Amino acid sequence: MTRTVVASAKREIVIGFDEPFCVIGERINPTGRKKLAAEMVAGNFDTVAKDVADQVAAGATMLDVNAGVTAVDPNVSEPPLLVRTIQLVQSLTDLPISIDSSVSSAIKAALEVTQGRPLVNSVTGELEKLEAILPLIKKYDVPVVAISNDETGISEDPDVRFEVARKIVQHAADYGIKPHDIVVDPLVMPIGAMATAGRQVFSLVRRLREELGVNTTCGASNISFGLPHRHGINAAFLPMAIAAGMTSAIMNPCRPQEMEAVRGANVLMGNDPSCMTWIRTYRDVQPAGATAAPAQGVAPAGDAGGGRRRGGRDARRAQVGA
Amino acid sequence: MTRTVVASAKREIVIGFDEPFCVIGERINPTGRKKLAAEMVAGNFDTVAKDVADQVAAGATMLDVNAGVTAVDPNVSEPPLLVRTIQLVQSLTDLPISIDSSVSSAIKAALEVTQGRPLVNSVTGELEKLEAILPLIKKYDVPVVAISNDETGISEDPDVRFEVARKIVQHAADYGIKPHDIVVDPLVMPIGAMATAGRQVFSLVRRLREELGVNTTCGASNISFGLPHRHGINAAFLPMAIAAGMTSAIMNPCRPQEMEAVRGANVLMGNDPSCMTWIRTYRDVQPAGATAAPAQGVAPAGDAGGGRRRGGRDARRAQVGA
Repeated sequence: MTRTVVASAKREIVIGFDEPFCVIGERINPTGRKKLAAEMVAGNFDTVAKDVADQVAAGATMLDVNAGVTAVDPNVSEPPLLVRTIQLVQSLTDLPISIDSSVSSAIKAALEVTQGRPLVNSVTGELEKLEAILPLIKKYDVPVVAISNDETGISEDPDVRFEVARKIVQHAADYGIKPHDIVVDPLVMPIGAMATAGRQVFSLVRRLREELGVNTTCGASNISFGLPHRHGINAAFLPMAIAAGMTSAIMNPCRPQEMEAVRGANVLMGNDPSCMTWIRTYRDVQPAGATAAPAQGVAPAGDAGGGRRRGGRDARRAQVGA
Repeated sequence: MTRTVVASAKREIVIGFDEPFCVIGERINPTGRKKLAAEMVAGNFDTVAKDVADQVAAGATMLDVNAGVTAVDPNVSEPPLLVRTIQLVQSLTDLPISIDSSVSSAIKAALEVTQGRPLVNSVTGELEKLEAILPLIKKYDVPVVAISNDETGISEDPDVRFEVARKIVQHAADYGIKPHDIVVDPLVMPIGAMATAGRQVFSLVRRLREELGVNTTCGASNISFGLPHRHGINAAFLPMAIAAGMTSAIMNPCRPQEMEAVRGANVLMGNDPSCMTWIRTYRDVQPAGATAAPAQGVAPAGDAGGGRRRGGRDARRAQVGA
């Protein structure tokens, strides 16, 4: 059984096929957030602290930490900023950390100070990247996100992306790193640009699990790029990916619709024991106002719970287990 | 390719793996609706007419019609009531009809008057039922819902339910009925009572599709029986079932959360060409108020569309297809 163990100083969580879906909170990331980037550069971590609190309250399983502010030389500026950010985050929460950087020296510096067993985000199939990151993964005995692109870029062909993933797993094995410490990101394309993007990723996740025995992750919101009401697409995508075997995603846990979809999928995969998390979270939800009205404005009809049972089937349902 | 053709006098729809999910509107059913039952017995079809209009507006693909009011002798009372109800429904909409009855004489009477190519709901694996219904299916050349229980009741063992489905398909073949005219209901158990119910049905749907080549359906809301905020569970279940290959469900189309999940799943399966239905339906949705707040009341944070793209991946995303 593929179990990827991630931990802080005080808390251990397992990413796996029989575990609740691992929600990796994506908010602590200055990319595309100019105000946050400026704050972090100026040594102001108020927004980071708020992002920690919000994501913890929203139910994140672990937190991704990225300090990739635009700089003249990221090799100089990013390591100390990433270290400082991670230390702050770990002073505020005991959720495990995902160290997110494309700068190898920043990952190295972060690994030296991060408590517990963080996830490293990420390595790719590029040889230079593999040779920079995999020794760190081995030395610090931590799991790594493997993104399935290489020197040739991102292939639109899922078979090529699968082979890149296989190559990374094989390279890692040369370093003595086990498949259960590799979390493959098969790369999610925008469905609005490529109608096969959904079926591709579901099929890839299944193959990655069955043939390589690895856990998987993705940047979930990429799927809905360019479409209206993206949360609705994301909220359908997550349960479908989970049903295919995806075990984690880098996503915004502060979006209630997506988190509800994840919690529902946990119930339906049998990974929310006695449905306790679902019941605790949603027992007071009022059905009528709780859903998005379709554009045509149809009023919700009938019973609140969708609970009317059908025709001749009632009697048969009652026979279950008889 | 498995294509189940259903039609009214003017409109044909196909249930199939590469078609939009077939939403069979369940509302016209007096079971558990005492007021509706009393109205129908008294010859008042106002509520039925409203249920037609609401379900059509909400986006149902076809309409299930059940006239199973409690009666001393359903063999006498149900056939004329079902006929009258179907005739009314067909005067109001050109959506195809699902004839829903556990009374064989009512199904026969309905088949004589229903325009187009209705779906018959249902036959089971019980020998008496097979021998009563299958000749009608053959004679009228219509598709049928096959429910995977038999004389022994409903098994909790999915392998037994699969074998019941296989038996029905084989029996039908003896009558010259093809697998593409059988829509199997693998029976959905409440997840609150049986933690394996979700995985069971996803696995069953996959097997039914791959091994028997049949389309599938279910009473979708059974999955959430007994849980709070059932729409959230249903809305996660439907995309997962669709990803597994389920091609239709008997459900309430007037529930916006479930319909949004179905429309999202259609997009993600590549079955909403150019995402046109999604865009038309949701282009004006306002993200902030459109989602259920979790019980802990976390405010939605950040950008409206979940659209911030992540760290070092931005550049890589931009390379897609390069």
